[in-house]
Amino acid sequence: MENIENKELLEAQNRLDEHLSSLNKEELSPDDIAECLKILKKEDEDLYYKYLHKLDLESLSTSAIEMPEHMLKDVLENIPKEKLVNAIEELESDDQFELLDYIKDIDEIKAKTIFNELDDEDKKDILKLSAYKDDEAGSYMQLEVFKANLNETVMEAVDRLRDLRHSGEIEMAYQLCAVDEKGILKYCIPLSDLIIYNFSLTIDEVVKSAKPDAFKPKFALDTDKISDVAILFQDFDLSVLPVVDKNGILLGRITPDDIHDFVRESATEQIYNLVGVDDEVEEDDYGALKASKSRAVWLGFNLITAFLSSFIIGIFDSTIESFVALAVLMPIVASLGGNTGSQALTVTVRRLALGDIEFKDAKKVIKKEFTISLINGITFAFLVGIIAYIWFNKPMLGVVIFLAMFITLGCAGLLGAIIPLTLKKFNIDPAVGSSVILTAGTDIIGFFSFLALASWILL
Amino acid sequence: MENIENKELLEAQNRLDEHLSSLNKEELSPDDIAECLKILKKEDEDLYYKYLHKLDLESLSTSAIEMPEHMLKDVLENIPKEKLVNAIEELESDDQFELLDYIKDIDEIKAKTIFNELDDEDKKDILKLSAYKDDEAGSYMQLEVFKANLNETVMEAVDRLRDLRHSGEIEMAYQLCAVDEKGILKYCIPLSDLIIYNFSLTIDEVVKSAKPDAFKPKFALDTDKISDVAILFQDFDLSVLPVVDKNGILLGRITPDDIHDFVRESATEQIYNLVGVDDEVEEDDYGALKASKSRAVWLGFNLITAFLSSFIIGIFDSTIESFVALAVLMPIVASLGGNTGSQALTVTVRRLALGDIEFKDAKKVIKKEFTISLINGITFAFLVGIIAYIWFNKPMLGVVIFLAMFITLGCAGLLGAIIPLTLKKFNIDPAVGSSVILTAGTDIIGFFSFLALASWILL
Repeated sequence: MENIENKELLEAQNRLDEHLSSLNKEELSPDDIAECLKILKKEDEDLYYKYLHKLDLESLSTSAIEMPEHMLKDVLENIPKEKLVNAIEELESDDQFELLDYIKDIDEIKAKTIFNELDDEDKKDILKLSAYKDDEAGSYMQLEVFKANLNETVMEAVDRLRDLRHSGEIEMAYQLCAVDEKGILKYCIPLSDLIIYNFSLTIDEVVKSAKPDAFKPKFALDTDKISDVAILFQDFDLSVLPVVDKNGILLGRITPDDIHDFVRESATEQIYNLVGVDDEVEEDDYGALKASKSRAVWLGFNLITAFLSSFIIGIFDSTIESFVALAVLMPIVASLGGNTGSQALTVTVRRLALGDIEFKDAKKVIKKEFTISLINGITFAFLVGIIAYIWFNKPMLGVVIFLAMFITLGCAGLLGAIIPLTLKKFNIDPAVGSSVILTAGTDIIGFFSFLALASWILL
Repeated sequence: MENIENKELLEAQNRLDEHLSSLNKEELSPDDIAECLKILKKEDEDLYYKYLHKLDLESLSTSAIEMPEHMLKDVLENIPKEKLVNAIEELESDDQFELLDYIKDIDEIKAKTIFNELDDEDKKDILKLSAYKDDEAGSYMQLEVFKANLNETVMEAVDRLRDLRHSGEIEMAYQLCAVDEKGILKYCIPLSDLIIYNFSLTIDEVVKSAKPDAFKPKFALDTDKISDVAILFQDFDLSVLPVVDKNGILLGRITPDDIHDFVRESATEQIYNLVGVDDEVEEDDYGALKASKSRAVWLGFNLITAFLSSFIIGIFDSTIESFVALAVLMPIVASLGGNTGSQALTVTVRRLALGDIEFKDAKKVIKKEFTISLINGITFAFLVGIIAYIWFNKPMLGVVIFLAMFITLGCAGLLGAIIPLTLKKFNIDPAVGSSVILTAGTDIIGFFSFLALASWILL
């Protein structure tokens, strides 16, 4: 082997070998498989293609979703279509839908041909899921549910579960969803409760022998926002949640891994959006050029606002010429103003996202943030005023910077609360763009108040 | 009623009434109960205390953990100790531990007396959990597990589950953990698999009749970091994970809600830490004074670094006096430098937290961030250089700002990657303090390079 000295390559190969020879296909997580393949691709292309072909159906289908675009492209071009179709049929409906959607981004025609080869049941499921918007609970649900009619016995339901498990149609069930003859969700019985009943009882009898309301179901509407569903999971410590349509008919279920991914991804998106970074573009395998392009958009807006500040400063150029100390001190006003604003903004954005506050709490939030910024405004204005006075031995310069800082920090707190609340009101993601608007505001207020007060008081 | 016109109060009261009269104590989530009580406390203290007393044991115990400090204090002072003890005994071990820990923060003596009144089993459990560090998997686990010996029959295990459910000792089980005679975890059988077997089989027979390795358990060590456990949950789409000690002995389990809370809270902590905000202090019910104090620490550091920048500018005061255009343009260099750095920093901090990258990837990460910042550096340096040249009709001024921006943005990318990686290396949370260090660096480099180049080239 030509790369015998490459430890990383050998390790990746060993890990894949171990996984593929193991009987339980869980030695490596789908993400680990993709990582190992990534190393192979970088170090030894031949070996990489060999292993792409070696992947069993389950490993192929689960890791495909974790692969970077270029790797999935390799898969689409090198793995025979029949194997791809069979691999996708291994997945549960929500994962099938997600993977096909990803394939469509790379090769729309290929996605179509694969879709056409799937069995009718899978096709129907995928079409159902694709009817939902990205942020709707429906697009996250799995259509495979363990359900039973009220008049069935537990044994009949369990027999059906056995068939579903043996055919691999359902991966894991947490509860039995009991529906009436119209398919309307009536009760949810956790398996840890169901298992302790006599299996010859009907579902109805099980429910009636329990405490009233014990199996009253919690559920989400298919059109509910996934962010609200995530809050429901958190508030009630849920592990699974059935999804129904507006008539109450059981459609599917949302599992904890969906919520997990959502919570993690939406947090990343938020953190990134606050500094104008696109989470999707930043994934390891896109090039630096793509990332820098996407980041440049935000920097471009910043450039515009920075020039706005410059124009403000330019208005007062003669004042600065007379008092160069103003040029020395003015970044302090802008910097602390910006940071005070960022604190208020970040807290407001995050609390909105967590559902801690809503637009209706605007008054309370603005009042709180304004108070905080006023308290810190007066403290730091006083501190900076004293230092400026001592440094330049000019009492009125101290007064000017005190006033400017107090105004700027106070406004920064106000803006930090008002900007995200306003964006939220207009249904714009408060994390996107809010910090650019904020910095523009605090910079302009900071430079203007400082220089204008200086012209007025010092000249 | 004196507050008949207060809609908010009436609504809160109605919601509590409905919850308390419902047979299934899940009308309101624990968090909702705390929210409603908060409204009552603000609007009508008498009514508030009346409802505190009205809470049933379950509602009291689950909502206590969601209450702000002042409200839990009211509970401790007004609810008889016996009721408190009974309420805590309603909780599962991990929640008991968490609540007692919270009570300890408010009233250590009370916490001790309550602890002493708990039954011996609960005491033992709480002591076990309190032996772990905050970030260890052990401190998050629930000690109540559905387990069985290999030689027991499924029926015997199910009978025990029935008793556990009826006594309320276990809330929900996802799987049966099979242990050998020493208590060492051998297999995990999801209930949806267990339920389809003949209950007269022994666990060992069930395992042997399944595919080899089908029930091979995934587990966490009690001393594993909870952040690593969260990544495991994500990678393998887990819904529950048993926890074992270093000898493999089954201790407890981690449930999806624990991981949920961890993922959400650690994301909030990160977002807040990046702007110097303390997530615990920001909770709604602490006053503005406490929040402003905590935020002021970060602003204080920013003040120091801002003054550092001022000193740098001060060195070049005569240069600025000769060319006031420098004062007009210098915030542009600093602002874009800071933002370019923030982008690199934020991406690096987040990817470290998600486990996407580690210290060993430092070279790759630094190279990528440096490349991105160089690409944007040259673009924006060119743009700003041209505008400056046109605005002030001075070609060499354009050259100076071009060079300064290129240097600053390049360094910003480097610093944005290096600072969090270095903090991580020394086991310091990369989100804490990194942005203050970054801004100090980019400001100093920005102002210095711009003004020094100007003195050298323009004078």
